[in-house]
Amino acid sequence: MARCRRLASFSEDAAGTRRTFLSPPMRNCHREIAGWMERLEAQVSVDAAGNFRGFYPAERSPGPRLILGSHLDTVPNAGAYDGALGVVLAIALLEELEGRKLPFGIEVVGFSEEEGVRFSTPFIGSRALVGTLDDELLSRQDENCTSVREAIRQFGLNPEEIPRASISPDTLAYIEFHIEQGPVLEELGYPLGIVETIAGQSRLEFTFVGHANHAGTTPMHLRRDAMAAAAEWITEVEGATKAIAGAVGTVGKLEVKQGATNVIAGSVQLTLDVRHRSDEIRSRLVSELIGKAEQISKRRGLVLRHSLLLSQAAVPMNEFLINEIERAVQKIGCVPHRMISGAGHDAMILAEKIPAAMVFLRTPGGVSHDPAESVAPEDIEKAIECGLQLLDQLAASPVFLKRMVRA
Amino acid sequence: MARCRRLASFSEDAAGTRRTFLSPPMRNCHREIAGWMERLEAQVSVDAAGNFRGFYPAERSPGPRLILGSHLDTVPNAGAYDGALGVVLAIALLEELEGRKLPFGIEVVGFSEEEGVRFSTPFIGSRALVGTLDDELLSRQDENCTSVREAIRQFGLNPEEIPRASISPDTLAYIEFHIEQGPVLEELGYPLGIVETIAGQSRLEFTFVGHANHAGTTPMHLRRDAMAAAAEWITEVEGATKAIAGAVGTVGKLEVKQGATNVIAGSVQLTLDVRHRSDEIRSRLVSELIGKAEQISKRRGLVLRHSLLLSQAAVPMNEFLINEIERAVQKIGCVPHRMISGAGHDAMILAEKIPAAMVFLRTPGGVSHDPAESVAPEDIEKAIECGLQLLDQLAASPVFLKRMVRA
Repeated sequence: MARCRRLASFSEDAAGTRRTFLSPPMRNCHREIAGWMERLEAQVSVDAAGNFRGFYPAERSPGPRLILGSHLDTVPNAGAYDGALGVVLAIALLEELEGRKLPFGIEVVGFSEEEGVRFSTPFIGSRALVGTLDDELLSRQDENCTSVREAIRQFGLNPEEIPRASISPDTLAYIEFHIEQGPVLEELGYPLGIVETIAGQSRLEFTFVGHANHAGTTPMHLRRDAMAAAAEWITEVEGATKAIAGAVGTVGKLEVKQGATNVIAGSVQLTLDVRHRSDEIRSRLVSELIGKAEQISKRRGLVLRHSLLLSQAAVPMNEFLINEIERAVQKIGCVPHRMISGAGHDAMILAEKIPAAMVFLRTPGGVSHDPAESVAPEDIEKAIECGLQLLDQLAASPVFLKRMVRA
Repeated sequence: MARCRRLASFSEDAAGTRRTFLSPPMRNCHREIAGWMERLEAQVSVDAAGNFRGFYPAERSPGPRLILGSHLDTVPNAGAYDGALGVVLAIALLEELEGRKLPFGIEVVGFSEEEGVRFSTPFIGSRALVGTLDDELLSRQDENCTSVREAIRQFGLNPEEIPRASISPDTLAYIEFHIEQGPVLEELGYPLGIVETIAGQSRLEFTFVGHANHAGTTPMHLRRDAMAAAAEWITEVEGATKAIAGAVGTVGKLEVKQGATNVIAGSVQLTLDVRHRSDEIRSRLVSELIGKAEQISKRRGLVLRHSLLLSQAAVPMNEFLINEIERAVQKIGCVPHRMISGAGHDAMILAEKIPAAMVFLRTPGGVSHDPAESVAPEDIEKAIECGLQLLDQLAASPVFLKRMVRA
């Protein structure tokens, strides 16, 4: 926890923690972590996509490797644990080995970018590891018209070398510890959760177009009130989503065009975010909600516009790893609770190439992306116990050592 | 109509019509109207509150007087008829008299301010006539920190002389022709409407305070979603208002604090505007809606804040004048439809001191405060016929001539 807080002190802002892709404080962050890992006689480097890489070798060289890690970038006004904890915890596991080597090496990766803050696109770091950090993405610009490529150069790295950041062909799997960032484990009273699937996600934008009129002179039955229509629909979104187990549906943004106290809203624009473990159920729910918006608009004499901003399929975690984590959690005396991740994570990207899995840590109050973000010390202890148990299980598993790659 | 369009050409903006309190184009407007009235041998002046005053004398001097008029200021991007039509129509009535004098003089007033645009407070002009343009109001500042008092001086007038702008003690009544600015007369197929009451008005601000959370990681049953609460309440506002004949209830403004597609709304602020002819029914409806907001907030674990921005009592128009207008409307072959004005008007202010009444003209599509605002020429003809008929009735009415003052 002290290490997480130490990393949180490396910030672009004087007042709070903000550490976006390859911003100057990221250099201090890398230096600090390198210091911790060099004491373990690990080889450290920063790849061409700005990811921290530290390698703790296998008992016999060359051996296969397991990647442990998470991301080092943060949102603005961040807490200390989102991302950073996964990197610090991986190093703590290596320290707990007390010099003992395993049949596989352990590569600790601190991803350079997961939050999507600087370039409005997430996972820049992990995409480099799976080979999807393409030209289009490298050409994206931040608010100061600096491209990803230029940002890499300005940090002293060479974007031409990005292909060398790809995961080594001897990599067996990726395992990520991360705070849940939600209230589920706290509600259930469990310190750890095992991610089965990273939920698929749909994002849409809707505009209800009615007619702006005088709020005093237009009787209720002659109105085409975009706000009343939007409100009716938002209530339907909540109802329809609640009716489907495990679904979440959110209208988080709403703007009234030229809204005024004494003017009936002529146009209301809002967003919809829907997530579910099943892509089929998610897309059925989205269709249902579009249908309801259309019905409401038609009945009220409004025009409806809607467009799809994002549709991202669900990503299941590796079943073998899930089972091994489940065994490890049970072994340390905890209830092995399988759950869905409603948020995206680097594990989702790594899963495109190698078996991937995630362990969630209980997040008090579900509070994240906020300076009040916290984790209980006992829960971190449980996570370390679980991680050590898992490493031992994997070290003893012929299935893992021989057959995981391209599973 | 040509005269209204001519006045609309005097604007602060090159592109559209915008003529706020004592802005430079108001001078051109006064000059133009003075030209029309001087041909009628009326005495014209501009009072210390910037109101245009033109007096067409009675058959015998000194006689009592009737005020006809409306306002000359406009909203930004205005139409040509809101306000201006009432002044132009009064002059048209004098022209139709063809030199004939009546037992009462007719004072045409073009109020300097009714819309409340420049100083965020309406009725500056008409308040001077009833003696309520007080120090507090005169000290109000516009966006450039110019006070009402300074604006009056900059226009070349003397604010010290405002008391002299009060209505003359011999004034019998105030009658205002104005476009309806709503769809009711069009819906019914009537050219004219007789205002019985100017509706009372309540304006409130509500804030639903929930908890901002991740839209992906927070299950539906663990949310305290301020947007969902606000939406549920807006639907209740519509339902409860519709259940009360003649009531209007509007949520025209809504802001989500730090709204984002993937964040559950932590706080939603919105406005409520409720109007009804009966103050009792209006205040009962407002209480009911506050109660519903409290219930919704409580059930959802939210905190509700609400504050009253405005509570304005309904203002009934003078019953004698309403009956006379009704007779006049019938006489010219129209259906005498009594109605409520949902918007405030200068007549509301004048009614504090003298009998006041209003005649509405059908407004195509209910469109107002917009360049597309229009009136049908036939409806203007009907209004002039009605006005002449009314003047003759009043001229022949001993009740009107002797007993109206302080009615």
